[in-house]
Amino acid sequence: MEERVPIELDSKVAMGLLTHAEYGRVAFVSGGAPVIRPLNHVVFEGRIIVYTQHVSAFAEAVRAQPGLAVAYQADEIEAHSHIGWSVLVDGTATDITGEPGAELLGKRVQSWIDRPLDAVIAIQPAAVTGLRMTIK
Amino acid sequence: MEERVPIELDSKVAMGLLTHAEYGRVAFVSGGAPVIRPLNHVVFEGRIIVYTQHVSAFAEAVRAQPGLAVAYQADEIEAHSHIGWSVLVDGTATDITGEPGAELLGKRVQSWIDRPLDAVIAIQPAAVTGLRMTIK
Repeated sequence: MEERVPIELDSKVAMGLLTHAEYGRVAFVSGGAPVIRPLNHVVFEGRIIVYTQHVSAFAEAVRAQPGLAVAYQADEIEAHSHIGWSVLVDGTATDITGEPGAELLGKRVQSWIDRPLDAVIAIQPAAVTGLRMTIK
Repeated sequence: MEERVPIELDSKVAMGLLTHAEYGRVAFVSGGAPVIRPLNHVVFEGRIIVYTQHVSAFAEAVRAQPGLAVAYQADEIEAHSHIGWSVLVDGTATDITGEPGAELLGKRVQSWIDRPLDAVIAIQPAAVTGLRMTIK
């Protein structure tokens, strides 16, 4: 029987995979409770950039607490073989809307849904880990 | 140009999609910080069942606080069209290891990595929302 073997990735390889992914999920704490939201992203100069709405729960939480602690996760798992990778990032999020270049960065983020976006948030990774699933 | 349109799903449809998914991500709060972990699951009698290791961060957090507030997210997005769905669950998690039937339930959960699992955790949904992305 095939045996799937997880291989730990170093943080550079993990960030490389995240760079090629189009979306992930951010988790943060709001009112003491965990919140998780799927988001599109780009990685630019080591930061994870997301483009969202000013009124979104995530943007509101970041504005209420600049440097908000967040976790970010992305994966690509092939449906049948279950081969693929998963990356976990711990970091801090800051609303950079209005900073020079922020809007251009935001526009690099793919948006799958046609709605006006107006908040650019940068996640600065503090720890990046990843697993690749292979078959022995 | 094609325009993707998000359609809100009712909670029954959203739980149905989750039932057919094999994995998702749980978010919880540990030491005040958000933690996110990818997990395989099954849905049984309205609860999301995951099978993990007693020593995992998630199992430890649930044992430290039975009824731990969690968020659970799953999606299936087609890579090229970006058509698909995303489901978000807010709920509470309880370690049910040792309860009658728990081990059998745990064994229903697909495990992609060959490692000994010994903690069965049930997530009771309190709120379930979902979006389906279609093309207009």
